[in-house]
Amino acid sequence: MAGLNDNYLKLPGSYLFSDIAKKVKEYSSNNPDKSIIKLGIGDVTRPLTPTIIKALHDAVDEMAVASSFKGYGPEQGYDFLRNAIVENDYIKRGINISIDEVFVSDGSKSDTGNIGDIFGNDNVVAICDPVYPVYADTNAMAGRAGNFISDQGKWDRLIYMPCTVANNFVPQLPEKRPDLIYLCFPNNPTGATITRVELKKWVDYARENDSIILYDAAYEAYIKDDLPHSIYEIEGADECAIEFRSFSKNAGFTGTRCAFTVVPHKLMGRSTDGTRCSLNKLWNRRQTTKFNGVPYIIQKAAEAVYTAEGHKEIIQLVDYYLDNAKMIRQGLQKIGFQVYGGENAPYVWMKTPNNLTSWQFFDLLLNKISVVGTPGSGFGPSGEGYFRLTGFGSKENTIQAIERIQGAF
Amino acid sequence: MAGLNDNYLKLPGSYLFSDIAKKVKEYSSNNPDKSIIKLGIGDVTRPLTPTIIKALHDAVDEMAVASSFKGYGPEQGYDFLRNAIVENDYIKRGINISIDEVFVSDGSKSDTGNIGDIFGNDNVVAICDPVYPVYADTNAMAGRAGNFISDQGKWDRLIYMPCTVANNFVPQLPEKRPDLIYLCFPNNPTGATITRVELKKWVDYARENDSIILYDAAYEAYIKDDLPHSIYEIEGADECAIEFRSFSKNAGFTGTRCAFTVVPHKLMGRSTDGTRCSLNKLWNRRQTTKFNGVPYIIQKAAEAVYTAEGHKEIIQLVDYYLDNAKMIRQGLQKIGFQVYGGENAPYVWMKTPNNLTSWQFFDLLLNKISVVGTPGSGFGPSGEGYFRLTGFGSKENTIQAIERIQGAF
Repeated sequence: MAGLNDNYLKLPGSYLFSDIAKKVKEYSSNNPDKSIIKLGIGDVTRPLTPTIIKALHDAVDEMAVASSFKGYGPEQGYDFLRNAIVENDYIKRGINISIDEVFVSDGSKSDTGNIGDIFGNDNVVAICDPVYPVYADTNAMAGRAGNFISDQGKWDRLIYMPCTVANNFVPQLPEKRPDLIYLCFPNNPTGATITRVELKKWVDYARENDSIILYDAAYEAYIKDDLPHSIYEIEGADECAIEFRSFSKNAGFTGTRCAFTVVPHKLMGRSTDGTRCSLNKLWNRRQTTKFNGVPYIIQKAAEAVYTAEGHKEIIQLVDYYLDNAKMIRQGLQKIGFQVYGGENAPYVWMKTPNNLTSWQFFDLLLNKISVVGTPGSGFGPSGEGYFRLTGFGSKENTIQAIERIQGAF
Repeated sequence: MAGLNDNYLKLPGSYLFSDIAKKVKEYSSNNPDKSIIKLGIGDVTRPLTPTIIKALHDAVDEMAVASSFKGYGPEQGYDFLRNAIVENDYIKRGINISIDEVFVSDGSKSDTGNIGDIFGNDNVVAICDPVYPVYADTNAMAGRAGNFISDQGKWDRLIYMPCTVANNFVPQLPEKRPDLIYLCFPNNPTGATITRVELKKWVDYARENDSIILYDAAYEAYIKDDLPHSIYEIEGADECAIEFRSFSKNAGFTGTRCAFTVVPHKLMGRSTDGTRCSLNKLWNRRQTTKFNGVPYIIQKAAEAVYTAEGHKEIIQLVDYYLDNAKMIRQGLQKIGFQVYGGENAPYVWMKTPNNLTSWQFFDLLLNKISVVGTPGSGFGPSGEGYFRLTGFGSKENTIQAIERIQGAF
């Protein structure tokens, strides 16, 4: 019989968001009269903006005529989009990235998951705790995470970097050297941000220790203060970092699917026999062999994000969600909750009141006031006693959810 | 320094279609006055049909309004599409497949590449020779192919199953038992088809030997005769086969990106300690962890393929390409070439005249009459001395290409 990838069997059975969905479904069918407000999953709710909609319609029309029809495109993305990305996200910030360092994809979940393909399975991996579950799970699938210790909620071969109130949710440099380091700022789930000074410490550490930083900047559009939007704002980061970016949260593409990953030419890995090799070349080989590009019409929509009008519209979109996050933050502070994030980030991370566990607080909110959030413990052991709310709902629902919470505590 | 996946360094440097593109570019810049006709890459050229275009526009409009906007969808695909697939591709053919056995994706290249994730790296893999290069390359990346023997053009750990005139391009059952067997019918690159009787031999062999067949049926829409469209037409195949299907070649989605993979519940793999486990469950875990679904608007377009009007239109589309393939076939036979495929398949596979090698014939066609095809040797050692032409060009170009070839030989 064909052999399985044994590592899959080590994964804990259930997945955070399906557990939540199950509980919500049960509650909903037992309480059909209650209006549930969901501020749980980090999914956008506002429609695509007019400029993006127009670009989609125009591209669809192109596909209807033989002379403008598009078949297979370049696996790495069309030059029109890669150029727009380089120009707007990098050159305008004084960052020197070339278009063949940019790989357009269907999403940062795919990219942060698939990036492991090009690395050996012996690498030691460091992740934040709490963390976006995909980093841990995909390394577990490759065998880099070792075994899962159920009672600790941890993998025994991963380095966990606790993000707590004490360190303002920005981890300390690890004591033991990792080969690969996942960082995400603005952070999911804590909403924490990182300053240039702090980020420089990580870049310096990675260069000194020959580590590679996998930098998830999917929420950079939410930065309003003077904070780094890209890790490449830090000198030398192009020698030690891969950056993941997405159109999901800035332009509302969660259901439209477009993202990109930057792999600088200077970035090197080492083979077992000591040969140094360009990771850009390897990722290019991976993508051209296992991927066939993003739909043409979707890439045209992503290009529209960078037009003058499109840019204006997505700033309004981001501000809408940031206003929600601010309301949540202030509304909870008003009743004495300890609240973090929610500034320069769509996520609000709160300490549960009365020493409730994350799931106890989840159950309480759901059963008492029909509000759904995400238990912090679902993101890792250090998330226990915390709870995540997101600014991605409608303004009306967000106001109502806050009123309900204020009324209940 | 972070360790690479060493297996990537074993991959031969260049890729068939980029070699071709380079030669064509050089010829084109040296001969700017010549009109080149490309019948090389298997890429469609006809526009999307009216029903599909309408579905795209309608879906784009839905994304413009908050009440119908779609964020993250199910990673496995929306039920509306999975239901349409099950109903039309399976139930109507008397095949019992349930919707949670169907996984919608962005392409069969992704799926045939990524499927390796759920299998152990010790499995022995059998591929046809010649073959779609992705099967070999992705197994090489996982370490299942061993080392590449340059002078043989072969990996030393893969089982090659020659497809030649002698076996009518349908391979013999392998002498040594493989764990995983890739089959593709109608075949890329040879255009060969398989009968139910022959396919049953493979299903029986796989069941007796506890092997798994990875069945690529991306070209099933080109079948006009009484041949199996799905491997699940064969009894017991749901215990031993995964099937890959695509909208690329039936509905012209090469640049629009939608496909699906069927992993039956009955299909099992074995862990190192002997535990039997459902591969459907593992693939579901892979897709929910490393993929975030196909764009909503693209899934609506794929759904439209199954409407009465949409279905009529795509039959015309397929017939257009089949007519081209027939013209190529007959046109080459007329000048005494040995020709295979091109019936129930968009690919014509021809023996090069005068014992030319595949690349000699390529150069001759390009330099003498400005026609581009694909050298058979690019698909594997048994492809040497053969050449592939595709029916995917325009009718006008296809007629002209044939006339040029007829004039030259």
